Formats: sequence, structure tokens, C-alpha cells
Amino acid sequence: MDHGDWIRKKFRRFSQTLGFHCLPLEEMENRLERVRGGMRKEGIEALLVVQKMDFYYLSGTSQDGLLFFPLEGKPLLMIRRELERARAESPLKDAVPLKSIRGVPSLIRKHRTKLPKSLGVELDVLPVREYSKFQELFPGIRWKDSSVVFREARKIKSPFEIDLIRKAGEIGGKVYEGGRKILKEGMTEIEFGGLLEAVAKRYGHEGLLRVRSLNYEAYTWHVLSGPSGGIVSQSDSPMGGLGLSPAFPVGASRRRMKAREPILVDFGTCYHGYQADETRMFSVGKLRKKFIDAYQACREIHDAVLEEVRPGADCEALFMKTLRLARRLGYGDSYLGPPGLQPRFVGHGIGLELNELPFIARGHSYPLEEGMTFAVEPKIVFPGEGAAGLENTVAVTKDGYEILTPVGQEIFEV
Amino acid sequence: MDHGDWIRKKFRRFSQTLGFHCLPLEEMENRLERVRGGMRKEGIEALLVVQKMDFYYLSGTSQDGLLFFPLEGKPLLMIRRELERARAESPLKDAVPLKSIRGVPSLIRKHRTKLPKSLGVELDVLPVREYSKFQELFPGIRWKDSSVVFREARKIKSPFEIDLIRKAGEIGGKVYEGGRKILKEGMTEIEFGGLLEAVAKRYGHEGLLRVRSLNYEAYTWHVLSGPSGGIVSQSDSPMGGLGLSPAFPVGASRRRMKAREPILVDFGTCYHGYQADETRMFSVGKLRKKFIDAYQACREIHDAVLEEVRPGADCEALFMKTLRLARRLGYGDSYLGPPGLQPRFVGHGIGLELNELPFIARGHSYPLEEGMTFAVEPKIVFPGEGAAGLENTVAVTKDGYEILTPVGQEIFEV
Repeated sequence: MDHGDWIRKKFRRFSQTLGFHCLPLEEMENRLERVRGGMRKEGIEALLVVQKMDFYYLSGTSQDGLLFFPLEGKPLLMIRRELERARAESPLKDAVPLKSIRGVPSLIRKHRTKLPKSLGVELDVLPVREYSKFQELFPGIRWKDSSVVFREARKIKSPFEIDLIRKAGEIGGKVYEGGRKILKEGMTEIEFGGLLEAVAKRYGHEGLLRVRSLNYEAYTWHVLSGPSGGIVSQSDSPMGGLGLSPAFPVGASRRRMKAREPILVDFGTCYHGYQADETRMFSVGKLRKKFIDAYQACREIHDAVLEEVRPGADCEALFMKTLRLARRLGYGDSYLGPPGLQPRFVGHGIGLELNELPFIARGHSYPLEEGMTFAVEPKIVFPGEGAAGLENTVAVTKDGYEILTPVGQEIFEV
Repeated sequence: MDHGDWIRKKFRRFSQTLGFHCLPLEEMENRLERVRGGMRKEGIEALLVVQKMDFYYLSGTSQDGLLFFPLEGKPLLMIRRELERARAESPLKDAVPLKSIRGVPSLIRKHRTKLPKSLGVELDVLPVREYSKFQELFPGIRWKDSSVVFREARKIKSPFEIDLIRKAGEIGGKVYEGGRKILKEGMTEIEFGGLLEAVAKRYGHEGLLRVRSLNYEAYTWHVLSGPSGGIVSQSDSPMGGLGLSPAFPVGASRRRMKAREPILVDFGTCYHGYQADETRMFSVGKLRKKFIDAYQACREIHDAVLEEVRPGADCEALFMKTLRLARRLGYGDSYLGPPGLQPRFVGHGIGLELNELPFIARGHSYPLEEGMTFAVEPKIVFPGEGAAGLENTVAVTKDGYEILTPVGQEIFEV
């Protein structure tokens, strides 16, 4: 059978019965309109969308290709691989084959209109070498950085997107509940992490977490026990753990977990591209008092943030409030990490990527808006001993918030 | 306890007892010398190393930072986070704190020498926005693309590196052997994949596979059963599978696996950053004859490649040989994918990344050299029905090859 025939005739039914859902047309049109708003504001006539998640956000497919999106007129999908599948996945009607990057200008002229005078492209991630090729292909065009357009458009989630994060959060709930049955004294961190991930995948977790960055990688399996939790690493977070090697110096290690020590599990899940991020504490037997107290402080800080979450609340002010509260609770030197190594945020926006707007952080003085989603993660770190912390992903609602990761917040003692 | 104190006093012992091994000084010096050779050839006076795996290759740490590496003189590690850990992990003696990218020129002047006239940086991956910042910081400097230097240096693996790939291959062996016990009729592809990964992690697989690309992501869990194996996707490989959603349209899906159908498992493992790639076939009960035959053809093609693997063999000629053999065996229209969708390679170099040199591919006419490592993966695809295939990672030896993924090559029938 011909592959294209199979995709045209069978793909839709085959995929839908397997819970593989395509983007609804109406949701896509709302996104296109949001992005058009940003293009007008930035004075960008047309976009060449190169980055996978921006491309997916607007087209509903992450097949390999480029999207040309003029302010006036319809978007054009140019697909390297696989064309028929992109047509089946995307509600965009127009998808044409892209044989070579050199063909992009003529595809645009043929299928759309004359070339625009200015073209936006995501300069925050586009490699120099690819940019140089584009510059040669479009002589005389004015290039603009479109990353701000996407960052702004994507920071407010639609009810459809929030529902996908809620579903990712439900998978996370199953992981943490499952963890109660899996955790045993003497098991290594990485074994526990692997088994938690197997639970997550069984329920549809997509396995990779995405970050918009050249070098920053997201690890799905932070399981940090005892002293592992006291180790800081490359990641801009309160602690990183030992990891498995200097090539992966973050997350679970081969350390065997012991009774009564803190076991911090920071686990991200992903459903249809949308991520939820969540942290809970486990212990085998009763946790040592020092860490119960630290955990209670994290809960208090977490609750103090949520108490003020609503449209209009200032993100930097929320962050500063947590610093004051941590000091008052006696954790000034351990809140968000050891002295000198504390990251400057307690919350990060989350959606298709783990580092979206808003940041609940120093230097981020702007208001929360309805539809924003972010993870709030107060943590307390004692080098040589361990870490305590709690994390939930929340959505800002009309007059407050909704927790999208609603599994129990007690310490999971087994 | 102070974090820096803990790292200086306890980290080495803590990490070594957990199988977290640092790069030996001698291995690092060999690598520096290899890269110096490339710098001389390309006329590059000094490198600013920005990409994580290039940075790790030369320094032995993947803490967040930049490496300045002058042709004359010692490399300088500039570390954003975490400095003490970079000092503990890297055999490089000099590591200095990097507060802001703006401080790079003065750090170089202070700790090394006057600024060079030309500076190499990896333009194949460096985002335009970061490059622009560097251009402002180093006015008047001539920038050169250093990616070729790394690609060439890293294409030949040392015995130390080959041993790490061998260890990754051993983990893969445990995964496939473990799969025999895990696979059950009616299990979903993603559940099977998750459980295989849990086995891999238990034995030290690091979970993420790395690819040098803006958008290309590697998925560790290709489990493709029956018609899933006949579906092509974005990835430049014979088939991609359905995946879990349009955001992850590759790899395992929620499809329940049935008896007698082909179940292709393509599983990459990673140990201390070094990857092995491997494919085997499973079936519940006896596999349908069509796929047994196709699998035998893949084995024949695989063996025909290996038969000629030795220093001096031409990569393109090896690829063309497989095309002729596939046609002779009656698989001209299904070898490496459906007509019109066939990738142009049957093998890819592998090491810290999945797309290194050499490529056993059309257009890659250059000789194999001792120390090269690559995966060879003949596959046969029938849209609507399924796929068959075999993959091993091999090292080129003085007069032949070594298979680094030596698990049994029979069909794993359960």
C-alpha cells in the first residue's frame, strides 16, 4: 500500500481510536489571531516560524518543516517530512512539500503573494548558520526577532490548553500515588525514578520535557534522597542532585535510599505537548523532624503565594513576599538553596515549554493575568543533609487560581 | 554546612562510590590535542566553546558555562553554575566564576592573555541573539565557525570512549533480555516502552539521547507494533510510528500489541554521555512469515555492511551496496521506507550525539577510520502492515569491527 494513501484513508481513524487528538480548527484560529496581534504591535509583516513548539502552537503539527505566516492572508505550511501526515494532523488547509530550504522564497511567491519587506524569525533559538542561509535567500529583507511575539502570545493559555495541562497533572497524580507502592528502602534513586516514569508513560506521559534553550535540558526524573538533595548543579533550581555522571549531573543517582531521610521527587509530565510540574516528598518510615519542619515551611510559603494569586497580582512582589516569609520562618539561609547559590525565582510559567512567562521572580514586576499557568516551587536545601519542597502547577482564573496538580500534599510516608 | 565546603571535602568520595566517574586527565589532554590539530587546520586562534557536548568533551564537566581554549596556552573554564562542582568534575585546573556574559572578555584578559584576533564558536547551533551579544563584546574580532573542528575531532573515538559506548550497549542488552519477560499480548506500545526504559535506568541509562540540532529530538522508546511500524513521521528514519500526540508524533503509541505481528523496538541507551543504538524485533507467538522474511533480509544487509567494515572502506559505497542487495532480495520498494520517503542513510555515527560522523549514506564518500563508531540499521517498511529491522552499534577496529551491542540477533519471540 502507498504510504500517502494509507495516511489519507486510514490515519484519522487509526490515530483517534488511540487517543491521538488533533488541534481543533477554532483553537488554531484563536492562536493565529493572538499572534497577529503581537505582529501588529511589533511591526512584523510576516513570520517564518522555525522553532518546533512555535510551529506546533500555530499549526497543530510538529512534522518537520517551516510555517510562513503573513499578517494579511493565510499561513502556508512547508513540509520536509512527512507531508501527508502534516496535512492529516494540522487544521491548516495548505501544506506544500519543502524539498530544500532554497525553495522557500519561491514557494512563498507561488502559493501566497510577493515577498514581504520584513520577516520575523525566532532569533532567540535560530542558529547563526541557518540564519545566514535565510539572509542569502531573502536579499534585502528586514529581519526582526519574533520570539517576543510567541512569548507574549503563549503566556496566556486558552481553556483548551489549560485542560491539557490538567490532564498532564492527572498523570502526575497517578505517578505520585503509584510511588507509594513502588518505593522500598534500599532501592536506588534512579530505579525508583525509572519505575515512576514507567507509570507516567503507561498513562500517556510523553517522556520528554521541553525547554527553550540551547543547552538547558529538562530531566523528568528528579529523585533526590538525603545528601543528594543538598547538591547544587548546573540547573537554575534550588538543588540539582548528583545525577548519573558528569554528562548528566542532575537528577536521580545510583544512591540507595534509606529510612527516615527526605526523598524529594520533582516530576514533570507531558500530555499532547503540555506540561505539568510537581514536587512531593516521600520517606520510608517517619521523616526526621528537621525535614518535616522544613517541608511545613515550604507549604506555608506555597500557600502564601497562592493566597494572592489572581489577575493583577505583581509577580516580583509575590516572590519578595516568599523571601520575607522564609526569613521569618528561620530559613533565610536555606530557602531556594544554599547561600550564594539561590535562584531568583520561586515560580516559572509552563505550557509547551518549561520556561515560559510568567516568572515569579526578582526583576519580573508585571501583573498576573487570567489564563497564565505556572509552577510554584518553594524549596529548602541543607548541603550534606537533604532538601525539602513542594511544587504545584496552577492556572490563574478570573478571581483566583486552580491547582492543576491536585494530588495530596502530605508527605508520602511508606 | 557550606555547599562549597561539602563539594570540596565530600563530593569526590560520595560520587565515586555511586559510579559517577570523572574524566581522566590523560583522556582530556588527548582530546585537547585533537582539537588543537583542527584549530591549526582551520586557522582558528582560540575557541569559545558554547555547546554542551563540545564543552563536556573538552572539559569533562557539563556544568553551565563557557570554555575559552586558546591554541597556545591553557583552557579557561568560566562557570555560571555550579563552580565548585565544575572544579570537582573537570581535570582542568582553572575554573573561574562567570557572573554575566558581559564579563567574558575581561575574564580572558585577566586569566589568560590579550584577546585573540580570531575566535571560533559553534555557528551550527549558537542562536543568533547570543551571537550578537558576543559580537558586541568582542569588537573587531574575526569570528569563525568551529563546528567543523569538533565534528572532525569527535568522529574518532578513543579506547576510553569506545568503552563507554560498550557499557551503554551492555545496558541495552539487559533491556532486550528483560523485554522477553515484560512483553505480553494486549499491552500497549507505550507501556512496554516505559517498562523497558525502567530496566535501562536501573542499570544506569541516563534517559535522554542527544542530537545536535535545533528541532530534532531523540526519543528513547521506539516500540512500533503492526501498522504503527508502517507510519513515517518527521524523523529522518525509515519509519517513525504514530507516537502519543501531534506534539510527539514519533515512537510508541497507545496501540495494544497483538499476537503474530511485528514489534520493532529501537532503543538507545546512554552511559556517561555516550550512546549506543540498537534495534531488535519481538513477537508474541510466531511472527507472520512476511516479516520473518523481511527481517532475514535486514540481517543479510546488516551482515553485508559489516563484512566490509574496516579502515579505508568508503561510506557511500557501503550504502550503495545495501541498495543493490535490497533490490536483489526483492525489497527495492520497501527498503529504508516507502517509495519517495526513503532516508538516504543506513548508518549514522554515534557518540555524545546521535548524528555524528560518519554517515553510511549517499553523498558521504569518505573512508572509515579506526576508532569511528556508528549504528547500522537496515529496515524494511510496509505501510498499513508493519516494519522489520535490525540495528547494531559498531566500532571500526584496526582491521575490522567490533559490535558494541552484542545481544542475540534472533527474533525475540515470547
